[in-house]
Amino acid sequence: MQQRKGSLLSFRPDIKVLDATLRDGGICNDFRFSDEFAVALYKMNLAAGVDYMEMGYKASEKMFDREKFGKYKFCREEDLRAIVGENKTQMKLAVMADVGRTDFRNDISEKKNSVIDMVRVACYITEIPSAIEMVEYCKKAGYETCVNLMAISKARDEEIDSALQLLGESPVDCIYLVDSYGSLYPEQIAKLTLKYLEAGEKYKKTIGVHAHNNQQLAFGNTIEAASWGASLLDCTVNGIGRGAGNCSSELLLGFLKNPKYHLPPVLRFITDYMLPLREQGVVWGYDIPYLLTGRLNSHPRAAIECIKSKNTDYEAFHRALLEKD
Amino acid sequence: MQQRKGSLLSFRPDIKVLDATLRDGGICNDFRFSDEFAVALYKMNLAAGVDYMEMGYKASEKMFDREKFGKYKFCREEDLRAIVGENKTQMKLAVMADVGRTDFRNDISEKKNSVIDMVRVACYITEIPSAIEMVEYCKKAGYETCVNLMAISKARDEEIDSALQLLGESPVDCIYLVDSYGSLYPEQIAKLTLKYLEAGEKYKKTIGVHAHNNQQLAFGNTIEAASWGASLLDCTVNGIGRGAGNCSSELLLGFLKNPKYHLPPVLRFITDYMLPLREQGVVWGYDIPYLLTGRLNSHPRAAIECIKSKNTDYEAFHRALLEKD
Repeated sequence: MQQRKGSLLSFRPDIKVLDATLRDGGICNDFRFSDEFAVALYKMNLAAGVDYMEMGYKASEKMFDREKFGKYKFCREEDLRAIVGENKTQMKLAVMADVGRTDFRNDISEKKNSVIDMVRVACYITEIPSAIEMVEYCKKAGYETCVNLMAISKARDEEIDSALQLLGESPVDCIYLVDSYGSLYPEQIAKLTLKYLEAGEKYKKTIGVHAHNNQQLAFGNTIEAASWGASLLDCTVNGIGRGAGNCSSELLLGFLKNPKYHLPPVLRFITDYMLPLREQGVVWGYDIPYLLTGRLNSHPRAAIECIKSKNTDYEAFHRALLEKD
Repeated sequence: MQQRKGSLLSFRPDIKVLDATLRDGGICNDFRFSDEFAVALYKMNLAAGVDYMEMGYKASEKMFDREKFGKYKFCREEDLRAIVGENKTQMKLAVMADVGRTDFRNDISEKKNSVIDMVRVACYITEIPSAIEMVEYCKKAGYETCVNLMAISKARDEEIDSALQLLGESPVDCIYLVDSYGSLYPEQIAKLTLKYLEAGEKYKKTIGVHAHNNQQLAFGNTIEAASWGASLLDCTVNGIGRGAGNCSSELLLGFLKNPKYHLPPVLRFITDYMLPLREQGVVWGYDIPYLLTGRLNSHPRAAIECIKSKNTDYEAFHRALLEKD
């Protein structure tokens, strides 16, 4: 029988918090955060003791129109430096690079020329060879790397096993358990975390967790995974993120016992920056359509459309989802 | 090592769902639900397969002004019958009776004269003798009974142990694990559930769970308790309830595998009745002040005031909470 790692009152020095506000939150407003917002978020994360701040995506400007998105979709070096300077701090900076949407050979330079510390490669289970190619490139360039293996709630056990083996044998530093559709319950998260940890121990990789809030379980699932030994924990301020959003920084930092974490700066930032964002019409968080796609283990696409069109006939929306499957 | 009861795909015939919308939700609007709302809720619960519907409080009309509250604060027999008729259905009806606020000898008549099936006695740990007096009275009058032991997150282990012994030796049918302040994490819920179940097995009592959503854990904690063996599960539609509210019916009924439960009627009811309630200005659900009282294991009173006064200076509110303690 596996044991939980640590207890509720202990703190585990291996646990690290990653703020994904600009990246996952950026999906809610096409990455159009003001410089003031980004600078305040950076300072807040430093004051709160956050370990990693994800600055956005490293999307290819050949594939995505720079006019249609804010700069955190692309994370050009000069744009990041305008916010964080040289980042001579304890906090590391991360970017996410989607397999197939990142021109990594051109857009990711040597680490010595960049303020970025970590590249997080996001891929579906079928794209692992491409992800590993990117990981090898980024490791050679000097970066810390993760692979965020998406949509595993749709994968079979044996697929996950061989994915973990391939990633284990790669130079990646951290493998992420990602609940893309917000469909997993804590008992499932516990079993998957143990599976990932087994690979992590064998291949000397850390394990991270990224949860979605479709069923109001993002925080619960994050601390469930942490309790078994996941050590890199994703959150966003006020839970901002695609659809139902993510694990809220204020819940996670309020829970963790390591005295290096501080809640008050997060509370200040919510008042000063997140409430105005909502007032401007940026929409995220738990809502019935997200619960329904989460429960059915589906991409939130249809739910996002449902909410955008202000359709509140949830029963009909549910029926349509069932017909599609 | 204790084992979880059943698995995610199994269904446990011992699990029963209790809808507390009129009762806990009533705290949000002084119990002023229209007859149309109550009748639709009753029909919806029947269609959804809900096992118990709590109709409100049985508060003393000598202590509370009938003009200041809707009828679900008092649950007079004739008022209930106007909604449910003779209730010739599979679904049982419950009322909550607060120790010290219920004139039970005058206001609770013989079961044979009432449509009520179950009396839920709510008490603090120091009030157990009074609760047992009410339980004995209600059992003798022919009712099924529960004791909802509140605020146990503030109680010491030995107090809970002796409370469980006293309740175990009483004629009560069900003992509720109540997370009054929304302060408990799933690991704590698991340990407490096992403690309650141990008493439940010894004294032949069922165990129920009533969770609050201050830290977005109401649903997570409810299914955590259920997974270890709690069998009476409280929920409210859309999570309506005091402060951060409760475990949402739509999450719980969407999770349970027993084919007698049906989600679509709940979705219909949300569209037709809960969205209009929010539009009328009734306020409930997760918000930062509730997270803060929950995290500090405090009564949500201060958070309710904070939200009512539209104070969004969460950092200052947090500081004031810390000073009080």
